[in-house]
Amino acid sequence: MEQALKGIKVLDLTRVLAGPYCTMILADMGADVIKVEAPIKGDDSRQFGPYVNGESAYFMSINRNKRSITMNLKNPEAKKEFFKLIKSVDVVTENFKPGTMEKLGLGYDVLKEINPQIIYAATSGFGHTGPYSARPAYDGVVQAMGGIMSITGQKGGKPTRVGPSVGDIMAGMFTAIGILGALHYRTEHGIGQKIDVSMLDCQVAVLENAISRYMATGVSPKPEGNRHASIVPFEPFDTSDGEIMIAVGNDSIWQKFCTQIQREDLISDTLFATNPLRSENYEHLRPILGDIIKTKTTSEWQAIFDANGIPNGPINNIESVVNDPQVNHREMIVEMDHPIANKIKIPGVPIKMSVTQGTVHKASPILGEDTADILKTMNGLTDSEIENLKKIGAI
Amino acid sequence: MEQALKGIKVLDLTRVLAGPYCTMILADMGADVIKVEAPIKGDDSRQFGPYVNGESAYFMSINRNKRSITMNLKNPEAKKEFFKLIKSVDVVTENFKPGTMEKLGLGYDVLKEINPQIIYAATSGFGHTGPYSARPAYDGVVQAMGGIMSITGQKGGKPTRVGPSVGDIMAGMFTAIGILGALHYRTEHGIGQKIDVSMLDCQVAVLENAISRYMATGVSPKPEGNRHASIVPFEPFDTSDGEIMIAVGNDSIWQKFCTQIQREDLISDTLFATNPLRSENYEHLRPILGDIIKTKTTSEWQAIFDANGIPNGPINNIESVVNDPQVNHREMIVEMDHPIANKIKIPGVPIKMSVTQGTVHKASPILGEDTADILKTMNGLTDSEIENLKKIGAI
Repeated sequence: MEQALKGIKVLDLTRVLAGPYCTMILADMGADVIKVEAPIKGDDSRQFGPYVNGESAYFMSINRNKRSITMNLKNPEAKKEFFKLIKSVDVVTENFKPGTMEKLGLGYDVLKEINPQIIYAATSGFGHTGPYSARPAYDGVVQAMGGIMSITGQKGGKPTRVGPSVGDIMAGMFTAIGILGALHYRTEHGIGQKIDVSMLDCQVAVLENAISRYMATGVSPKPEGNRHASIVPFEPFDTSDGEIMIAVGNDSIWQKFCTQIQREDLISDTLFATNPLRSENYEHLRPILGDIIKTKTTSEWQAIFDANGIPNGPINNIESVVNDPQVNHREMIVEMDHPIANKIKIPGVPIKMSVTQGTVHKASPILGEDTADILKTMNGLTDSEIENLKKIGAI
Repeated sequence: MEQALKGIKVLDLTRVLAGPYCTMILADMGADVIKVEAPIKGDDSRQFGPYVNGESAYFMSINRNKRSITMNLKNPEAKKEFFKLIKSVDVVTENFKPGTMEKLGLGYDVLKEINPQIIYAATSGFGHTGPYSARPAYDGVVQAMGGIMSITGQKGGKPTRVGPSVGDIMAGMFTAIGILGALHYRTEHGIGQKIDVSMLDCQVAVLENAISRYMATGVSPKPEGNRHASIVPFEPFDTSDGEIMIAVGNDSIWQKFCTQIQREDLISDTLFATNPLRSENYEHLRPILGDIIKTKTTSEWQAIFDANGIPNGPINNIESVVNDPQVNHREMIVEMDHPIANKIKIPGVPIKMSVTQGTVHKASPILGEDTADILKTMNGLTDSEIENLKKIGAI
């Protein structure tokens, strides 16, 4: 099958999560992502548990489809090879603390002299400009500073960190978007550029209506629990054996919902007939519905609501997600064959494309797996030259 | 200034959040996004509060940089004009329930007959294939079903919905990535395609290490509260006047941290010297640190930690985010001039590009603001033809 980014070469200096998530997206779409890792140690996340046959499940998941070359970027001989590679790639990515690439002598200004069309993409905690630029950051810090924690949590409760590291992941996604936009521009105009994505900026960009609510009212929104701020009923309810999320998005769904819970009297009730009324009289309505939903199991309600077009869903744990028929039909859990871990299951590719479907076509690389191959085919080195680079600790 | 997607035309049928977020990203990068709205009513989110001079702050925020044309897509005359527009655009986007476009006679199969190179991007709750495809979904439902709620929340507490609608937003981001990948492929090969992004799939794709943890251990991860699962200390602490997030990512930061809290004795303490030890003895360490951090204000600790390279940050509410110096330096809160709402502040563009910086260059459109202009310049209609289409309710 064809792949959207076939032929695009990415020299990838990123580590751990934000950067590797970005280049995973590009590799899934067919880009040749060459992961540059420090000799011996490699990407820090190779050490993150849990392990399968000693291999990090974390690392394997977000580094599928990539190749690995080891290079000690402080070694002048390794740098020479690095500069040669820069000549033949389209994109270079890094997520070091700002200034690190310059200290290594590998800043954008240096690299664009070697390859003027190169697209240089940097992902960092606070970005390459501004008063916090030099500060170190982790996902927890940008989730705290970016406001998402302040509007996540149970009603009246503490600000709550989002489980997955969305500080990293969303920055990785925006970096991928920037690279693809820059690629389009380069194809049209032959001009490369630098992309500078800050994790904090990305958190601000995804606050949805929180900023506009604050701007319009002067009051900072707070955690709303699991309830929708302005639609009722739109929250999880306890069932006889768990919970179910019910989302009565409009009055026509409300009418169907009342019929299915055998309370048609509520449809024309002057307290509940419209969404504004239901919001106003929430405290009155919630216990009525709570008592009814408690009388059946989650899957009994699900069957009833699904048959009648009432938006609902179970609150799945990870086991249920992994075994969900829709998730599996969409190939969102795929099996990858790894030379050491053997068969492992990882998330699939969420962008379904009719002509150029992305795939998981290659396991994450063993550290330095492709060093010799890349130096031979891209830089024209001989076996003995490669052997020599190894001896001096350059690769 | 140049823009990355200048010249790309998007005919945008999306409403509310997931789709409009996608096309906002494209419009920010310079694409000409033509928002097709139902006459009189327009995008549902025009009715979402809060309002500024009667204009929805929600709508204005995610529809900046777009143009608006009204069209009743059930009217045959409007359809004729729609098909003419399809001939001259690069991308068409929609986030209807699967099957809606086919019912309107506007499915991908029809549109690609008219413009074989068109890129057709659909964003929906569960995708265009699979057993749940026809079901309605809202953000709350896919957050529940996709597993993110099951790993978000206070320790021992209930699964918790993420405050911003990440079910919608992440699907919008992945759709934008798909469109840009397809655009690259089309430029190279002259072939268009259909992109089908499911909100549920996207939730699975961003679970980070939760799936690999489940696969390796057979146990579904649970909410971990605000604490990092395997790094200590890496969580918020109470200060004398609020909270501070502290992220001691490695042992070298630990040493600096102990020095700054004037507890150098902890550095070599056999219970706490390394991260595995600190994780093991967390229950012992937490109260010691808690007592110390409680003795100063958040901003006192911040000054100390910032001066010494210790990753930390306040848990900002939205007011603090909006007024943060770094956020403002990076132009992540920008002022937009709107003809009715006047000056309003909205989030800026998180992808910083050295040559083609995206901008907020135009306010969100008034409903149908560009109808006449678009029909004249793109479809060659005369004033009287446009008048006639209005009379028959086609536009």
